[in-house]
Amino acid sequence: MNKHPFDLALQLTPLEPGVYGGTTSEAYWNMVGPFGGVTAATALNAVLQHPSLLGEPVSLTVNYAGALLAGAFRITATAQRTNRSTQHWTIEMTQANASGVQEVMLTATALTALRRPTWGSEDTAMPGVALPTGLPEEKPMTGVEWVHRYDMRFVEGAFPREWDGRGEGSLSQLWMRDMPLRVLDFCSLSAMADIFFPRVYLRRALRVPAGTVSMTVYFHADSAQLRDAGTAYLLGQARAQTFRNGFFDQTSQLWSEAGLLLATTSQIVYYKE
Amino acid sequence: MNKHPFDLALQLTPLEPGVYGGTTSEAYWNMVGPFGGVTAATALNAVLQHPSLLGEPVSLTVNYAGALLAGAFRITATAQRTNRSTQHWTIEMTQANASGVQEVMLTATALTALRRPTWGSEDTAMPGVALPTGLPEEKPMTGVEWVHRYDMRFVEGAFPREWDGRGEGSLSQLWMRDMPLRVLDFCSLSAMADIFFPRVYLRRALRVPAGTVSMTVYFHADSAQLRDAGTAYLLGQARAQTFRNGFFDQTSQLWSEAGLLLATTSQIVYYKE
Repeated sequence: MNKHPFDLALQLTPLEPGVYGGTTSEAYWNMVGPFGGVTAATALNAVLQHPSLLGEPVSLTVNYAGALLAGAFRITATAQRTNRSTQHWTIEMTQANASGVQEVMLTATALTALRRPTWGSEDTAMPGVALPTGLPEEKPMTGVEWVHRYDMRFVEGAFPREWDGRGEGSLSQLWMRDMPLRVLDFCSLSAMADIFFPRVYLRRALRVPAGTVSMTVYFHADSAQLRDAGTAYLLGQARAQTFRNGFFDQTSQLWSEAGLLLATTSQIVYYKE
Repeated sequence: MNKHPFDLALQLTPLEPGVYGGTTSEAYWNMVGPFGGVTAATALNAVLQHPSLLGEPVSLTVNYAGALLAGAFRITATAQRTNRSTQHWTIEMTQANASGVQEVMLTATALTALRRPTWGSEDTAMPGVALPTGLPEEKPMTGVEWVHRYDMRFVEGAFPREWDGRGEGSLSQLWMRDMPLRVLDFCSLSAMADIFFPRVYLRRALRVPAGTVSMTVYFHADSAQLRDAGTAYLLGQARAQTFRNGFFDQTSQLWSEAGLLLATTSQIVYYKE
């Protein structure tokens, strides 16, 4: 059986303990560099592949320091501290520059933990929206490759059709799943946390240079709950709180099709003009 | 003039480039270890003190790996990558254990940037709430020292008076300012981002062991806007989205008294039972 393009994109070769080699994926290429969601997933994958891993992901913060060039990269995951039930990670992704010097392209931190059953409360219900099957498949951002790796169906806040500067809100709600289908896991959920196109496009109905500089994902589900979500659609919702002097924020939620909140996430995004 | 206790708590002595020595502050002591907000502010301060600093803070993520012990700590801030207008930082805080080995107590990342005027939109208005002067000053969590360093006036979601398990929501809104008064800056804003007591206390009206493991702050204001906020109250709002198997999230906003959104922030918090 052929490997899924997402698994191919995430493939890491151990070079020494905690150090891996990888290669950027054409299948997930964005305008400049790879789709940031796949880069975040790769950072997490370096932790998940680590022989000292304790537990499962609870949080991940990735900082996009430079746009990855097509080709080889190196990634280092270090368990900075291991407690009884939690483990703190730092991650660094580098690429050799023209002089062969490894330059930092990404810094990240992650927390993994052994989760135990406790009292709980699901305080953020999935919005009641139209089912994905009744909605058209739409690609935001034509001309980039990675959008073809997802089936996306917008409920609200689709990619603007006219760039007339008449945008009003920044809220998008969309159903999403891997294409071809792939059973959900922490890496694919991390990638989908970055699926929302820049809020500034929607808010302004104007296409200006923009790029995520930092993204944080909180994982609320365990691996069994992600497996249960399977290959069904997730509902994602994203919204900005403010746009000011070159940076805006984005806060998002991702629910399983059955309505379980799987992850909450936030970004800070650079924009120009 | 005597130094403000916050400035004393943040005081760092350069040991070598990017490496500083500091001491925990009794004035900001929490139950176990210092108030996490002051620890976050100290991590940011190491960046702000760095001779290579470019621009002003845009984002900060701190991961609390272990509870700091009373006494000396060491903090290292490293500019991992400097671009034309952005700079990516990693920060590490360590303390010597009984054998003299430096153990990691905190990992953090930060982004600083030169911000330029652009189109903007303030999409998250400050809620219309009662003015602070008409509200009583209240301390959450009696018996801890740091709460006395803040003037806090709750609009909604005050510290539960009865621990009867009858909590309903997780929303708190409160006015806050340093006590004694101190002109706002990036460090004090970072500390105030962590002022909200654990949402699980409020949601359950039950006091269970809880502690922040990771906090991310996005700064939407520049230093001039923080100076303008001066010593006036800030309005803070915090809410959880879900509580599940030992971890809950918290998303928050902090506005100046004049209604400018200064920071948005999120946390993931460990809880027991």
